[in-house]
Amino acid sequence: MGAVLRDRSRTARPDGRRAVGGEVSTRSTASEVVSLLLHATAITIVGASDNGAKASGRTMRYLRKYGYKGDIYPVNPSRETVQGEPAYASIEQLPAVPDVAVIVLPKAAVAAAIEACGAKGIRFAIVFAAGYAEVGAEGAQEQAELAAVAERAGVRFLGPNSVGAVMAAEAVTTAFMTGLDQDRFALRDDGVAFVSQSGAMGGFVLNMAQSDGLGVGRFFSTGNEADLALGELMEGLVDEGSTRAMLAYVEGVRDGEAFCRALEKAQRARVPVVLMKVGRSERGAVAAASHTGALAGSDAVLDGILERYGAQRAEDVEQLVDFGRVFAANRIPRGRKVSIMTISGGAGVLMTDYAEDLGLDVFEWDQPWQRRMAEILPMYAPVSNPIDTTGAIAADQQILTDGLQLCLDNPETDIAIVLLGNLEMEEDGLCDRIIEVAAGSDKPILVAWVGGSGNPRRILSSAGVPTFTDPVRAMRAAAALADWALAEPPAPSPAGPSSELSVLKDRLAAMADDGVSMLHEMQSKKVLAQSGIPVTREIEARSPAEARAAADEIGLPVVLKLLSDEVEHKSDIGGVKLGLADLDAVEDAAAEVLAIADRLELTERSVVVQESVTGGAELILGATHDPTFGPVVVVGLGGIFTEVLRDVAMRPAPIDPGEARRMVASLRGVALLRGTRGLPVADESRLAAAISDFSRAFAEISPAVESIDVNPLVITGSGGVMALDGVVTLKNKEEQR
Amino acid sequence: MGAVLRDRSRTARPDGRRAVGGEVSTRSTASEVVSLLLHATAITIVGASDNGAKASGRTMRYLRKYGYKGDIYPVNPSRETVQGEPAYASIEQLPAVPDVAVIVLPKAAVAAAIEACGAKGIRFAIVFAAGYAEVGAEGAQEQAELAAVAERAGVRFLGPNSVGAVMAAEAVTTAFMTGLDQDRFALRDDGVAFVSQSGAMGGFVLNMAQSDGLGVGRFFSTGNEADLALGELMEGLVDEGSTRAMLAYVEGVRDGEAFCRALEKAQRARVPVVLMKVGRSERGAVAAASHTGALAGSDAVLDGILERYGAQRAEDVEQLVDFGRVFAANRIPRGRKVSIMTISGGAGVLMTDYAEDLGLDVFEWDQPWQRRMAEILPMYAPVSNPIDTTGAIAADQQILTDGLQLCLDNPETDIAIVLLGNLEMEEDGLCDRIIEVAAGSDKPILVAWVGGSGNPRRILSSAGVPTFTDPVRAMRAAAALADWALAEPPAPSPAGPSSELSVLKDRLAAMADDGVSMLHEMQSKKVLAQSGIPVTREIEARSPAEARAAADEIGLPVVLKLLSDEVEHKSDIGGVKLGLADLDAVEDAAAEVLAIADRLELTERSVVVQESVTGGAELILGATHDPTFGPVVVVGLGGIFTEVLRDVAMRPAPIDPGEARRMVASLRGVALLRGTRGLPVADESRLAAAISDFSRAFAEISPAVESIDVNPLVITGSGGVMALDGVVTLKNKEEQR
Repeated sequence: MGAVLRDRSRTARPDGRRAVGGEVSTRSTASEVVSLLLHATAITIVGASDNGAKASGRTMRYLRKYGYKGDIYPVNPSRETVQGEPAYASIEQLPAVPDVAVIVLPKAAVAAAIEACGAKGIRFAIVFAAGYAEVGAEGAQEQAELAAVAERAGVRFLGPNSVGAVMAAEAVTTAFMTGLDQDRFALRDDGVAFVSQSGAMGGFVLNMAQSDGLGVGRFFSTGNEADLALGELMEGLVDEGSTRAMLAYVEGVRDGEAFCRALEKAQRARVPVVLMKVGRSERGAVAAASHTGALAGSDAVLDGILERYGAQRAEDVEQLVDFGRVFAANRIPRGRKVSIMTISGGAGVLMTDYAEDLGLDVFEWDQPWQRRMAEILPMYAPVSNPIDTTGAIAADQQILTDGLQLCLDNPETDIAIVLLGNLEMEEDGLCDRIIEVAAGSDKPILVAWVGGSGNPRRILSSAGVPTFTDPVRAMRAAAALADWALAEPPAPSPAGPSSELSVLKDRLAAMADDGVSMLHEMQSKKVLAQSGIPVTREIEARSPAEARAAADEIGLPVVLKLLSDEVEHKSDIGGVKLGLADLDAVEDAAAEVLAIADRLELTERSVVVQESVTGGAELILGATHDPTFGPVVVVGLGGIFTEVLRDVAMRPAPIDPGEARRMVASLRGVALLRGTRGLPVADESRLAAAISDFSRAFAEISPAVESIDVNPLVITGSGGVMALDGVVTLKNKEEQR
Repeated sequence: MGAVLRDRSRTARPDGRRAVGGEVSTRSTASEVVSLLLHATAITIVGASDNGAKASGRTMRYLRKYGYKGDIYPVNPSRETVQGEPAYASIEQLPAVPDVAVIVLPKAAVAAAIEACGAKGIRFAIVFAAGYAEVGAEGAQEQAELAAVAERAGVRFLGPNSVGAVMAAEAVTTAFMTGLDQDRFALRDDGVAFVSQSGAMGGFVLNMAQSDGLGVGRFFSTGNEADLALGELMEGLVDEGSTRAMLAYVEGVRDGEAFCRALEKAQRARVPVVLMKVGRSERGAVAAASHTGALAGSDAVLDGILERYGAQRAEDVEQLVDFGRVFAANRIPRGRKVSIMTISGGAGVLMTDYAEDLGLDVFEWDQPWQRRMAEILPMYAPVSNPIDTTGAIAADQQILTDGLQLCLDNPETDIAIVLLGNLEMEEDGLCDRIIEVAAGSDKPILVAWVGGSGNPRRILSSAGVPTFTDPVRAMRAAAALADWALAEPPAPSPAGPSSELSVLKDRLAAMADDGVSMLHEMQSKKVLAQSGIPVTREIEARSPAEARAAADEIGLPVVLKLLSDEVEHKSDIGGVKLGLADLDAVEDAAAEVLAIADRLELTERSVVVQESVTGGAELILGATHDPTFGPVVVVGLGGIFTEVLRDVAMRPAPIDPGEARRMVASLRGVALLRGTRGLPVADESRLAAAISDFSRAFAEISPAVESIDVNPLVITGSGGVMALDGVVTLKNKEEQR
């Protein structure tokens, strides 16, 4: 858990400032950095080469190439001019304080340059040099020193090992990536930001998007993230206020809190976020020790976080751009009802298929609207949705204009999708018509244009009509748009800490200080009960006679178990006796189990007598710590669902009841809670409330608690929940804060 | 079941000929049709317009545009010349017998033209006219008449409602689709065939592929399939002998037997097949009545068939082309070990991730080979797979040549993948190097070139190096290649019909004739036993005393059940008593169940006493009929796996043991058979043998049997299988052949 604590202490405060030796420095927030770069009026390139082909010469060449209009100050002590501009011998000698310093120096000279930036009053720098943490321990040490230097100097920085940043609106191409060496497009800014943890992939995606008319115009390559990391940059991009959609290529989140905050703010500001996350297989290998812990792993938590904030996850690189394209259009659907106009009946079937898979509704048009469409189409066939225009659209383009207009006019339509293909002779006219109709509506319109010259994608996308080369990809983008638009935001944070839980936390911390690492079943269940999870009635017994009395009090039948924190799998050693239906049987069972305790020479030799619950479906409910995202809660259906199918949902704690309910609904086996196989129907509100209470309690006591494992949590005959067993594991002294 | 029989009788014989009124006509086989078209030296266009922009004028214009060198005979009684060629007044007056007649006439004139083709000796026609079965019952009738005319005339035909066929090698563009109106590419034939049930999508995909340098050079739009249907055309393309890869866009298979035969032949001839199948949602709605029947539906069977023959299913249109691209290269990997050279470390992580998901192995290079790679790369970093060349490759292209060569030389490498991006300045040189190295190896090489100008994809793909715009798409294509190459073909057909099963079939047919529709449990289990499925020992009893005696003979504990074919869910009415451990309990239970039978006034009032099997995991095993593909067998894990998760595998019967084993292995819950949760480990060979025997038996007796439902089939303590219950449903007289 040390990692969590260290990581947290490294994270910026919400205001972007950092505590340094007790003082608060006044370094810029990420949002200020974004603003500085977006509107940079002067840029210095420290170590700029006169040779525009070299890595150290490219930034200056690109700024010129793309028409940057501000001042450029090359720093190069060995030359009078660099690429035609007067050169300065040092940062100190610059004629004004630039907004950004691009440091293209070799590694050895970087720290001194950052110091000089600070002295000059430069608030933000970009560091290209590599050879730091990515090459080993020595480099990591140098990187830490660089970060410390920058912190002292009051300079925020991107990198090291960044390929740079690009702000297209004012041609701020403070980067050295060769993806900018092309003459096919001018850079556009459609308000789409892209933060990439891979420099090369970042450059590829930027180029791919801009080539096809999508203005991914705010790009950051985060490099090694010695200072500004992914989450903070995303947060800054939202805070700055003009970003309309955000893409991210993620290899691993370092600043979990800032990342979650960024997603939360983005959701509030209606800025859609699309993530491409890689490194699953590596992460998968980092398996935690406990049962529910083994199901953790940041990738599953990340999925839960994205789900929470309605962020979308892209399956491949082109989908990242696809989703960016649909979100850049900035049209928000009110529902999932799709009207499809298609030149191909076959494509109509295809899109209807995928609509069903993806949760979109290719709804049946009502009669009056069907009749209106029939007047537009030159056909005798009935006019249902998808609306098959056939090839007639090529000869009579007015069909497209009128038909699409009618799709948008139909009040039931939430999203309109147009399928075209080839038609190279007619493409300009058809594109004009689509753009014209789109201008008169605020409903989302997506076009799939299959085959053909490829020009329609560029033309339409540039005009704000997201266009795709594959009908399936268009449907996936439409579904992502609807999923995002209709995601329920989490409820406002629940009430503050309860004093009862605060006392519990202190008591558990004290137990841990005394060397207790795992609570036995009865102790664990008391924690559960205080955390809002109903538990079985139960009484401890130290002799067969006490067990008999306990059973008599609880009422038959009962369950009898060995009570011990020394034995993990009690049933394996015969320590669990189920369905004891008479008092003699209880006494016999107690004697048998106590004999086992004797034989194993356990410290504690007692049993617990419990009410016997014949319930329905079994769930597991667990709580643990994720190294990046802190306390998390996992819920799943028990048995094979968890062990064989890994069918679980995971979220950072706390979770509000609405989200808990959605977690449960997302389980593949949820039918088991809804009356399948004659099982009792769960009251999902009560279940959600229990999960939510549990998650809040864990968030409170997590400084003292390593993990909680409730297994099984059964659905009772009345539809409620009850924990039949549970284990609470405490943090040891060092792990506690 | 009527549909199955009708459908079968419509299906062509393996030799492509059809029985007509007891005689065998000598119409061409599909393979002969493919040959005719591929090497057509004379083509007539019946109804050709002088206006090349009109649908009826386009074919002639396209033939000229793409450089067709054979003779073109336009038939048009009202003109002297058509598009500069002398026109003929009728088919009869043509100067020679053309290989193909393209009939561009309106619907009313088509049948007469087909008749005239037959009289002239023309063996193959293409019919563009629409307005047949796709518009309703009247059109369907006209279509049937057209088919009958053609059959009498000895003419095979494509359509009606086809957009045509294209054979690129000799520029046979017998089509009217506007996708041929472009000037960006000449048509190539890389031996890749494409059969499409959607005309428009066919045209789009053809254009998309050819634009990017993939020679999809044998295209058929099947239209309404009044004569030549999907399966037969696929079979013909394989039989003809020069097709190297086959793509298909499928809305519904009409000729199931020919389709399966095509896949089987393709697998034997090592011709990879990629299918894009749509219409799942519609199909899904056609739910059958019985339990396992409800799980059927042609789409699941289709998946099973593709699995059987190693055919690949594309998820979207671009994937169809992607897979075509990788298969067109005609390089067969020997295994799943992938070496990746990447210019981007981030992309390396991404590809490794997906490799794991897709069953590819980004293997660790051994030390000597790592050292050899280190000599090539200009780095201090260790050289593992994926091999990160970094951007150095741009400045020193020899790294690409030497590195890729080493990847191929490494004997462990089965597939080499190169990731590049952008690099517009260097793209020509890099492409040349890849093509040069590729020429010296027969291992598959795939390139992902992300971003940039798009030219590398065209250049490399045209040179036989399949190239993709997305690393994930490249990995998916590589996985499809490996899946295809390593798919185990089904074993040769098992021995012929057994006389025992033949007797059983006759006996069941006789029972059905007597009005029996469902066998009771003991009868059903006798059928199972004869079908190779071990069943519980059991004895029928008509009184409590008989039940006691039966239990004594079988040995305690026993299970006792109501024996009746009138009650379907016996446990719901208290008709099942489990775990009877003493003889008194057996007598009591028998009395109780017989009283229920009395109360319900059942015809048969008896019980069955069975050995009590305490087994492990439970499976279901079922057999039913698919309307397209005939007798099918379904296997799944019991309970929630089947009911909640629909986790089943389905194949047409019979199934060989190897395939049965792969079916079981494909189940998501297979861990339950392999010792999870302390369950007995199944002997998967015995299980596979039982499934295979069962499937063969069902194939034999299926003319009399509607369905068989074995539920549960349990894994016994020794790892074997045993049917605890089963129901055999018979066909009624009309359903029998």
